[in-house]
Amino acid sequence: MSHEPTIFDAILAGEIPCHRVYEDDHVLAFLDIGPLSRGHVLVIPRERAAFMHELSDESAAALGAVLPRLCRAVMAATGCTAYNLLQNNGAEAHQAVFHVHVHIIPRFDDGSGLRLTWNAGTLETGEALAATIAAAVD
Amino acid sequence: MSHEPTIFDAILAGEIPCHRVYEDDHVLAFLDIGPLSRGHVLVIPRERAAFMHELSDESAAALGAVLPRLCRAVMAATGCTAYNLLQNNGAEAHQAVFHVHVHIIPRFDDGSGLRLTWNAGTLETGEALAATIAAAVD
Repeated sequence: MSHEPTIFDAILAGEIPCHRVYEDDHVLAFLDIGPLSRGHVLVIPRERAAFMHELSDESAAALGAVLPRLCRAVMAATGCTAYNLLQNNGAEAHQAVFHVHVHIIPRFDDGSGLRLTWNAGTLETGEALAATIAAAVD
Repeated sequence: MSHEPTIFDAILAGEIPCHRVYEDDHVLAFLDIGPLSRGHVLVIPRERAAFMHELSDESAAALGAVLPRLCRAVMAATGCTAYNLLQNNGAEAHQAVFHVHVHIIPRFDDGSGLRLTWNAGTLETGEALAATIAAAVD
């Protein structure tokens, strides 16, 4: 699945139009056509990768680097003062297009934006788990 | 608010312990003490910035660059195959600690993880909005 072209490849190639807000050598940003709120933007790497864990460090750094300025632009253009950044990996995690994309989702007083349910638990076996994750960092 | 120290400054300074999974010159990653699921990790820049729109490009790039390898490590350690990355800005957007942090939240078959409600609308005035955002990019 991860190496199949998606609609975002067609957008990157200019074969399908988008409402572009930013682009550089590594990244393209455009309006989500199914927005959760006004100013909902998608930021994607030009590199084809389905999931964050498959993306190159170079593309991930470039994607990260543009987020502050894109967030400022969305705030300036929409007047929002709160927003969520979300990046979903896997259908079970609400991913619908299998090309890495970061959602910038403004939150407004009318309730539009990302709706979250925060069912926090308690960390009980942190030491062993942290050591296992740390040992797995490549 | 954005320049006030938070508990994450105390963690970065080693004054409060954490279950560390990764660190480098720019970034620290550790287990969330109120996890939404097993392996819920927070990734923070050493730079003190409350919101993504206030973070330096350099820190944002460094934060982005470590995400692929940290996601791989969380997947390897927990066995998850789906996960969400979330970064909240503003109390209205569920931000609780005012120092930039990216949540890596594994999603499991038992339903643990991030619960989202996706109330997508339809983009109607995309051309003008995209132009306004594009013009606001600094």
